[in-house]
Amino acid sequence: MRAATVEHMAHSQRREALREWLHARELDALLVSDLLNLRYLTGFTGSNGALLVHADGDEASVFCTDGRYRTQSEQQVSDLPRLIERSSLLRLAKQATDTGIGRLGFESHVVTVDGHAALAKVLGPDALVATSRPVEALRLIKDEAEVATLRSACAAADTALAGLLADDGLHPGRTEREVARDLEARMVAAGAAGPSFQTIVASGVNSAVPHHRPTDAQLRRGDLLKLDFGALVEGYHSDMTRTLVLGQPAAWQRELYDLVAAAQAAGRAGLRAGANVRDVDTAAREVIAQAGHGENFVHGLGHGVGLQIHEAPALSQFGVGTLEAGMAVTVEPGVYLAGRGGVRIEDTLVVSDGEPELLTQTTKDLVVVPCF
Amino acid sequence: MRAATVEHMAHSQRREALREWLHARELDALLVSDLLNLRYLTGFTGSNGALLVHADGDEASVFCTDGRYRTQSEQQVSDLPRLIERSSLLRLAKQATDTGIGRLGFESHVVTVDGHAALAKVLGPDALVATSRPVEALRLIKDEAEVATLRSACAAADTALAGLLADDGLHPGRTEREVARDLEARMVAAGAAGPSFQTIVASGVNSAVPHHRPTDAQLRRGDLLKLDFGALVEGYHSDMTRTLVLGQPAAWQRELYDLVAAAQAAGRAGLRAGANVRDVDTAAREVIAQAGHGENFVHGLGHGVGLQIHEAPALSQFGVGTLEAGMAVTVEPGVYLAGRGGVRIEDTLVVSDGEPELLTQTTKDLVVVPCF
Repeated sequence: MRAATVEHMAHSQRREALREWLHARELDALLVSDLLNLRYLTGFTGSNGALLVHADGDEASVFCTDGRYRTQSEQQVSDLPRLIERSSLLRLAKQATDTGIGRLGFESHVVTVDGHAALAKVLGPDALVATSRPVEALRLIKDEAEVATLRSACAAADTALAGLLADDGLHPGRTEREVARDLEARMVAAGAAGPSFQTIVASGVNSAVPHHRPTDAQLRRGDLLKLDFGALVEGYHSDMTRTLVLGQPAAWQRELYDLVAAAQAAGRAGLRAGANVRDVDTAAREVIAQAGHGENFVHGLGHGVGLQIHEAPALSQFGVGTLEAGMAVTVEPGVYLAGRGGVRIEDTLVVSDGEPELLTQTTKDLVVVPCF
Repeated sequence: MRAATVEHMAHSQRREALREWLHARELDALLVSDLLNLRYLTGFTGSNGALLVHADGDEASVFCTDGRYRTQSEQQVSDLPRLIERSSLLRLAKQATDTGIGRLGFESHVVTVDGHAALAKVLGPDALVATSRPVEALRLIKDEAEVATLRSACAAADTALAGLLADDGLHPGRTEREVARDLEARMVAAGAAGPSFQTIVASGVNSAVPHHRPTDAQLRRGDLLKLDFGALVEGYHSDMTRTLVLGQPAAWQRELYDLVAAAQAAGRAGLRAGANVRDVDTAAREVIAQAGHGENFVHGLGHGVGLQIHEAPALSQFGVGTLEAGMAVTVEPGVYLAGRGGVRIEDTLVVSDGEPELLTQTTKDLVVVPCF
C-alpha cells in the first residue's frame, strides 16, 4: 500500500468520525473553514480552502480551493470531489443550497461576523447552525499516525540540543540570538521543517521573563539559561524547555531548579487518563506554593500540542475536563524571580491509562555547562 | 533618542491616525483584537492581547494581555496604560462599559461569531459597531520605518540566493528539500528571523505546480528550477521568485522565460500611484495572453506585503482600488505547463509617484547554472 493511500485512510477515518457527530446533531453537513481542521480531515496544506463534510458520505462531500492549488489539491485530496473557486466557503455554501441541504453546521469559533453575514446571504439565516469545535474535539485524541509524527518532532529537538551541547554551543560570549539560530538550524538538520514557534533563549536576568525573545545579550558565566524551543514536522509541533546553568550554579539557582523539577515531576505524576486537568495543574502548583513561590508561577502548567503549538486541553486552573488516553500535552511549571532569573522545565507527553509516554527525552537533571 | 522611543513615536503616530478615523465615524473607541494590527499599533509581539484605542487619546486607551506577557508588555508597550487578564478582549469590553463608552467599534473581519456573542453579553448588542478594516487601511501605506525593514528583509533574500549560487548550491543531485533548507539557513545567517513563508523549490515538472512544496526530488541537468522564498525581519515579509535553468536551456525554456520576463516588466511598468490595481494585472496578463498562454497564468499578478506575506492590495482581476505611494506589493506573473515545467518571476516593490522602488535586487536575466 502506498503511503498516500495510508494517509487517505487516516483522513477518511477522521471524516467518518465527524459524520457520527453530524448524525447525533441531526445536521446534514458541516462547513469546515479552519485550515488546520481542513488539513486534519484531508491532508491539504494550502493557505485557502474549505470542506463540506456531508453526513451521507465522501461521495456527497466536496473540497474547494482556488486555482493556485489545483495541482496540489489533485495530489493531496485525490479521494474527494473537488471544486476550484477563490471564495471557497461561499462556493460550498452555494453547493449546499443547490443540493438541498437543510441544516448546515459552521464553525462559529472560526467564521467571523463578516463571514457569517456573507454565508447567510447565500443560505438564508435559518439553515446555518453554529457548532462548537467538533473537529477540534476529534483532534484532542491523537491517532497513531499523529503520535508517531510528534515523536519525530520531539526527537529533532532532543537531537538539536544534544548537538549544541556537544559542540560547545553555549559558551560565554555567544548571544541569545546566535544560540536561537543555532538551535533552529540543528532542528532543521535533524529533519524538522523549521521551529515550531519562536525559539526562546533567555540568559541571566532575562530568564525571569517567561516568553523572552532572544536579544544580542551575551551569555555569561554564572547565568541561568532558559531554552524553550520545538520542531515542526509534517505540521506537528514539539515543545520542550530546559534551563541550564553556565558554570557552577549558585545555591539559589540550584534550589530554584530543584523546586521546579519537583513541581514538574508532580505534574507528570498526575498526568493520567481520567484526571481532571485542573488537578494536574494543582499537583505541580502546590509544590511551588508550599515553597513560597506561588505568585512567581504566572502561567498554567501546560497545554495540548498537535497541529497547533497551543491547543486543547489546557492544564490550568481555568481548564475544564478530564484527560483521555491519546492526548498530547506539555507539563511546564516555571518560577520567575524578576531581576534575578527564572527556571522552567517542560516536556511533551502523551497521556495513557498508565504512565504517560515521554516524547522529549533530554535529561531533566540540572545541566551544568562547563565554563573555563 | 533611544530606539525604543523612536519606535514608540511610530506607534503613537499610527494610533493618532486611527483616532482621526474614529472621529469621522463618531465612534468613542475601537477594540483591536487582530494580533498584527496590535503589533502595528503598539509594537507588542506576544500571542494574546487586545487594545482599546480611545478617541480621546492614549491616556484613555488601554492595552491588555495575559500574565505570561507581563514583563514583555512593560517593555514593548510602556507608553500605554496596561491591564493583565487572560480574556483580554472581554476585559477591555468591561473597561469600555465601566468608562461609559457609548459607540464601540470592533473588527468584524476578525471577531468570530462566538466572540461577538461574548462581547454582546458584556456590552449589550447596541454598543457594538462593526468596522471595516480601519487598521488595515492604515497598514496599506508603509511608513519610512516599515519600508526600511522591508528593504532589510529583501536584502537578506538576495544575499541568500547569491551565496547559494556562489557556493554551487544548485548542482544536480541535490534535493529540493536540501535547497530549501540551505536557502532558509542562509537567510537566517543574513539577519532574518526565519523564512517569511514556506519556501518553494520546484524542479523540472514540479515547476509547473504554482505552490509546490519541496520534496526529495533531485535537481537534474536540463531542469527549470523555480525558487519562491522570502525573509522575515522584525515581523515584515519579503517575497521573491526566480526561475533558473540547470545547464543550457532548451529553446522552449528560454522562450517561456522571456515571455514571463516581458510580462513581469509590463506589470512593473504599470506600477505607479494612481493606477487601478486591475489594470496593472491586465498589463502583464495581456502579454501572456497574446502569446497564447492566458489559461496557464492561473493566479493574480501580485499582492501587498508587510506584516503579512499576503495583504492588501490585490493586483488581480478581482482587485478593487488604485495604488498609492507607499504601498508595498509583489509583481509575479507565471506560466505553468503541466507535465513540462513553469516559470515565475517575482519582485517586491514599493509604489511611488514615479518609478517604484525595487526591493528585491537579484538579476532577472535568465540565470544558467553551470552543470558539468
